[in-house]
Amino acid sequence: MFTTPPKRARSGEAKQLRERAILDAARTLGAQHTVREVTLTDIAAAVGMHKSAMLRYFETREQIFLTLTAEGWREWSAAVRAALDTLDPATPETIGAALADTLTARPFFCDLLSQAPLNLERNVSLDAAHRFKTIALSQVAAIVEELRRHLDVTERQAVDVVATATSMAGALWQMAAPGTQLRTLYETHPELAHAAVDLGPQLTRILTALLTGMRAGAEATT
Amino acid sequence: MFTTPPKRARSGEAKQLRERAILDAARTLGAQHTVREVTLTDIAAAVGMHKSAMLRYFETREQIFLTLTAEGWREWSAAVRAALDTLDPATPETIGAALADTLTARPFFCDLLSQAPLNLERNVSLDAAHRFKTIALSQVAAIVEELRRHLDVTERQAVDVVATATSMAGALWQMAAPGTQLRTLYETHPELAHAAVDLGPQLTRILTALLTGMRAGAEATT
Repeated sequence: MFTTPPKRARSGEAKQLRERAILDAARTLGAQHTVREVTLTDIAAAVGMHKSAMLRYFETREQIFLTLTAEGWREWSAAVRAALDTLDPATPETIGAALADTLTARPFFCDLLSQAPLNLERNVSLDAAHRFKTIALSQVAAIVEELRRHLDVTERQAVDVVATATSMAGALWQMAAPGTQLRTLYETHPELAHAAVDLGPQLTRILTALLTGMRAGAEATT
Repeated sequence: MFTTPPKRARSGEAKQLRERAILDAARTLGAQHTVREVTLTDIAAAVGMHKSAMLRYFETREQIFLTLTAEGWREWSAAVRAALDTLDPATPETIGAALADTLTARPFFCDLLSQAPLNLERNVSLDAAHRFKTIALSQVAAIVEELRRHLDVTERQAVDVVATATSMAGALWQMAAPGTQLRTLYETHPELAHAAVDLGPQLTRILTALLTGMRAGAEATT
């Protein structure tokens, strides 16, 4: 009775497998070449589909990468909350480092974080943008809750911390990404070497100072 | 003897006027439609030149906008240094507000600030990227010097402040820009309204906490 699954379910499963294959191909290419460099044609070639067939699964190349950004939020959120949970003691320094380290360890997510508001969220339907934003915001809320378990900050302050961590990770990664023009410039012009971004240490310093200042501000007003 | 200027000088002047006209047209279009939306064809049409003729003045559309970004750095740097110079007293709060207010008042520069590392610096010659970076870094150095006249922070801390101010202004502007998909989403989905970015206040809060934390950190270690 169950040997032949209903056609609808089978095609639903096949559709999911296809979607997964497209997302995996985009992730591999994006991590290799940066998100900016990967076209819909590249993804179609990697997954062995025609471009027009692929557009039955995703509206645009931006929707593919926006879906990966949502997955990135879920994955990073779990990792950073686990890292925060093991901190002993939880101080502005150790929390700043946990946020910076978990982001620095995910260069493809850093790339997506800066691409999302500039490019990805602007070339998808309002529905797709809404689905993405709902997922991202629920992960921000989960991290905010975990942050507040460890440090005496308001909800708005914790939201500011997550916004700074993710936006600065994205911006600094763009300035530091290997293989980019900027990297070449720093490597070939020694007088600019001091300006080369060292993502992990700079992000840790900024987040530590931000958290320290939020706590100091809270003490000053109590 | 001086009535007929040398041909070379005259054509040099004409070239400068043409460059200026191209830059002004790109600035007007970029401020109206966001940098992302403006093509080389749009700029050529606005300035009344053929696209091929325009490419004798600038390598790419990105070089046009990167030149405007360099001009933006010079102009903002002068404005923020003048603002810092009048602060009485200069505190983390007033310095944070001066940085945030001068950036928020320049939405086109905010747009350029986030476009530069992602897109503009990646589609110009190494020479053009070098010229841009040299101008931007000299303006960063000038702001760093002014910041340190007013607040007891190290050079590296002051550089972190300028990096955070400009990168967050760029990132938050992208999330808040009027007319974008994200704005529409916030306006049509009340449950997301709390997530809408209010650039000025959020940037002021973040920079104030950052500066407070840097000072508190310095006190803690002395």
